[in-house]
Amino acid sequence: MKTFKILLLGFGNAAKAYCRLLIEKEEDIIKKFGFKVLVIGIATGSKGKLVNENGIDLKLLLDYVEKNNTFDSSSYEYRKMTNSEMIEKLEYDGLIELTPLNIDSGEPAISHIKGALKRGKHAITGNKGPIAFAYKELKKQAFEKNVKFLYETTVMDGTPIFNLLEYTLPLCRVNSVSGIFNTTTNFILVEMEKGKTYEEAVEEGKRRGFVEADPSMDIEGFDSAAKTCALLNALMDANIVPSDIRRKGIEDIKIEDIIRAKEKGKIIKLLCRGYRDGEKVIGEVVPEEVDRTDVLATIDGTSSVLKIETDLMGAITVIENDPEIEQTGYGIFSDTMRLLK
Amino acid sequence: MKTFKILLLGFGNAAKAYCRLLIEKEEDIIKKFGFKVLVIGIATGSKGKLVNENGIDLKLLLDYVEKNNTFDSSSYEYRKMTNSEMIEKLEYDGLIELTPLNIDSGEPAISHIKGALKRGKHAITGNKGPIAFAYKELKKQAFEKNVKFLYETTVMDGTPIFNLLEYTLPLCRVNSVSGIFNTTTNFILVEMEKGKTYEEAVEEGKRRGFVEADPSMDIEGFDSAAKTCALLNALMDANIVPSDIRRKGIEDIKIEDIIRAKEKGKIIKLLCRGYRDGEKVIGEVVPEEVDRTDVLATIDGTSSVLKIETDLMGAITVIENDPEIEQTGYGIFSDTMRLLK
Repeated sequence: MKTFKILLLGFGNAAKAYCRLLIEKEEDIIKKFGFKVLVIGIATGSKGKLVNENGIDLKLLLDYVEKNNTFDSSSYEYRKMTNSEMIEKLEYDGLIELTPLNIDSGEPAISHIKGALKRGKHAITGNKGPIAFAYKELKKQAFEKNVKFLYETTVMDGTPIFNLLEYTLPLCRVNSVSGIFNTTTNFILVEMEKGKTYEEAVEEGKRRGFVEADPSMDIEGFDSAAKTCALLNALMDANIVPSDIRRKGIEDIKIEDIIRAKEKGKIIKLLCRGYRDGEKVIGEVVPEEVDRTDVLATIDGTSSVLKIETDLMGAITVIENDPEIEQTGYGIFSDTMRLLK
Repeated sequence: MKTFKILLLGFGNAAKAYCRLLIEKEEDIIKKFGFKVLVIGIATGSKGKLVNENGIDLKLLLDYVEKNNTFDSSSYEYRKMTNSEMIEKLEYDGLIELTPLNIDSGEPAISHIKGALKRGKHAITGNKGPIAFAYKELKKQAFEKNVKFLYETTVMDGTPIFNLLEYTLPLCRVNSVSGIFNTTTNFILVEMEKGKTYEEAVEEGKRRGFVEADPSMDIEGFDSAAKTCALLNALMDANIVPSDIRRKGIEDIKIEDIIRAKEKGKIIKLLCRGYRDGEKVIGEVVPEEVDRTDVLATIDGTSSVLKIETDLMGAITVIENDPEIEQTGYGIFSDTMRLLK
C-alpha cells in the first residue's frame, strides 16, 4: 500500500473537519486513488505539537481534543519543536497550512509554505494570506520544484472556483469577477434591512456566531479585500496585494441608506469586484445598491456568490449555499485528493 | 505535430460555433495540448457530406455555408455516403454527434455513438438523447474499449455540470438536484407574470427567438424531462428513461394562477428535480410557486440554473447567464480539449 504523508499546521475547526473526512473516507480514498493518507505531524500554537511517522491516530486524537481542548503532553507523540523545525526536518509529502491569518502580511503562512516547497514538498493552504500576498512567487517556486501548490478552500470553502477554471473551463480567459464573500457584513446588512439598528444587528450576529468579537476586519472590508485579491491573483493573474484593492466597508452605512434603497426596490450589499483595465487588473470592495431581482440580493446567512465572466463561456455564477465548517474541511480534502491523482 | 481527427455529425448553429472556436483557438490548442485538431468529415442531412483526411478548411467552409446554406456539391471533398458509412469507414479519433434529437428514442444519435465506440473511437454528444435513453450502455461500451464518452453541453451548454462533479468534487455523492432548464417555458411564465396572456407570450417568444414554431415539446415539459433524465443518469446513476420522469408542463397554467402567486410574493417556475428514495432515483418536472427571494425566481431570458446537493460539499448552485449559441459550441469544445489531455 502506497502512503501519502501529511504535515498539518493548525488544528482548529477546519483542520478537525478535514481530519474527520480523512477518517470517514479512508476506504474510498484507497479504492479510488490507491493511497493511504497518514497525518505524520500536527503543529499548533496553543495545543502543542505531535509527530508520528507511522501516522497519528486521528480518531483518538479528535476524541482527546474534544474532551481536553489540548494535545496530551504525556504522549510519546508529543514534541517540543518549532513549526520551522517540523517543516524542515520531518519526512512528509504534503504540507497543509491552516494557521491563523495575519491579514497585514500573510505571515507566517507564507514562510511555512516556502519552507515546504523549497524541500520539494507539495503545499495546500486554507489560508488566503499566501494567495493574497505572495501568489506569483509561491506558484513559481512550486513550478520550479515540480510540485503542486493548491488553495481551493481560501475563497468560498470547498466550492470549486480555482479548480472550476483550471479543470472544467479549458482555454477560457476571465475578464471580470464579482460577488459577495463576507458573511459578517452580509448578515448585518440583511438584519438592518429587516429593521434592526447597526448595533442590534452586530449583537444578534455575535449571539448567532456570524460576527466575531472584534468584527472590524470584516466591517471595514479587509476580509473581503483579501479574498478579492486572492481571487484576482489566481484567476486573472493580477499580481496585486490587498492594499491595491479599492476598499470601502459598511461602517458608514446608515439605516436611512437602507430604507432609501428599499423604497427603490433595492438592497445594499458589500460587493467585491475585479475587472481588466488594459494590462492591469482593478479590484474593489464597495457597498452598493442591487436590484431585488438580482441573484446578489438573494444571498443571505453564510452563503456566498461569485460571478465569473469569461471570453469563451460567457458568464457563470456559482453560489455556496449555507456552508458550515465541514465545507471548509472539504476544500482542503479535495485539494489533498488532487495531490493523490 | 500530432493530429486529432474529428468526424462531425451535423452542421447547425452549435456545430458552426464549435468550428469557429477551433479556428480561433488553433494556436492555443497546439501550445497547451500539443495537438492540431482536424475535422476530417462532416455529415449533414440537408447540406450534404464532406470528407478530407487532411482536414477540411473550416474557414472557407463557414464562409461558403453562410452564403449558400449548403455544401459545395462540386467540391472534391463532397461525398455521397451515409452517416453509417462515414462512421464505419473513415479514419478519425473522435466522433461528435450533433444531429437533430428524436425525443422519443434518442435515435439515430445512439446508433451513431455506438458505431464509433465499437471501433474504439472517442465520442462526444451535444445531443441529450443518448444520455437520457442509453447512458449506462454507452458508458459501459466506452469503458470496455478504453475510450471516452463525453456530454458536457447536453445540459446548460458548456457550463461545467458533469465535469464539475467529475473533476472538482472528488468523492462527493449527489443526493438531489433541482433547477430550471427550459428557456421557452421560463420566458412564457415571465411574460405572463408581466401581464401578457399565454397566447401573447408565445407570440412574443416566437418573435424574439425564444419559442419554436411548434413549442409543444417545451410547453408540455418533454424537453425538461429529457434534460432531467440525462442529469439524473449521469450525476446520480439513476438508470432511467424520460418516461420515468413525473412530468407536468405549463399548458394548464392560467393567468389567475400567476396573479394568485404574485399576491403571495411568489412566482411560478417550471422546476426540474431529482432525489433519492432508497435505492431509486425519482425525477420530476412540475410548475411550482417559488419565493421571490429564491434564486430560482431571478432566472430569466436564456439563463438556467442547477442546484446540486452533495454529502460532503453541501449545496452548490450554478447559473448560466444569458447564453448564446457560442456557449453550446464551447461545451463541445471543452469536451474536445478533455480528449486531447
